[in-house]
Amino acid sequence: MLKVIAEDFIKPECIGIVMPLYAELVEKTRQEPQCIAYDLFTDRKDLGHFVFIEEWPDRAALDAHCRTGHFTRLVPLINRHQRRKGTVILMDPFTHDAERGTPARE
Amino acid sequence: MLKVIAEDFIKPECIGIVMPLYAELVEKTRQEPQCIAYDLFTDRKDLGHFVFIEEWPDRAALDAHCRTGHFTRLVPLINRHQRRKGTVILMDPFTHDAERGTPARE
Repeated sequence: MLKVIAEDFIKPECIGIVMPLYAELVEKTRQEPQCIAYDLFTDRKDLGHFVFIEEWPDRAALDAHCRTGHFTRLVPLINRHQRRKGTVILMDPFTHDAERGTPARE
Repeated sequence: MLKVIAEDFIKPECIGIVMPLYAELVEKTRQEPQCIAYDLFTDRKDLGHFVFIEEWPDRAALDAHCRTGHFTRLVPLINRHQRRKGTVILMDPFTHDAERGTPARE
């Protein structure tokens, strides 16, 4: 399992422009057969700060998502209105092996 | 609904120390009656970067979590091993009112 946090930082005056683009991106991505979760949130302290929390079976599925028609069309349209470059974190679920006292990685 | 991302940055040499503390924090927090989700992840590119993705009914529930015995005991023990201060983002689910073309906030 691959968990992803992707953060976008949009100029405040452009929020109204990106909202329908994000809505379409969420709707279409959730229809991808490999998408487990694709949820979008907004920062309470910064409405131009959009945060995706995603779940994919693996990296190949995320890469396939980034090659879809909706992604390659909508993301550049959104990114025109960035105030700074977005960030992406790829993550594994925390697991702890109490016997060894060390991270239990797959 | 309140979604939370809380990020910790732990010194690489201290990861083995914090692992059981995080395991206990997750186990005990999930037993809180108001906890909807409390999942911990590690950054694939930085094992000392721990990321909580949380869900609470509201801010009062999050504040109550931060006052629990397990939180007030374990978090300072974890924070001793930080390499830099953690961050917290409080978020609302993205909603878009297509009629108005603007954010539809609760």
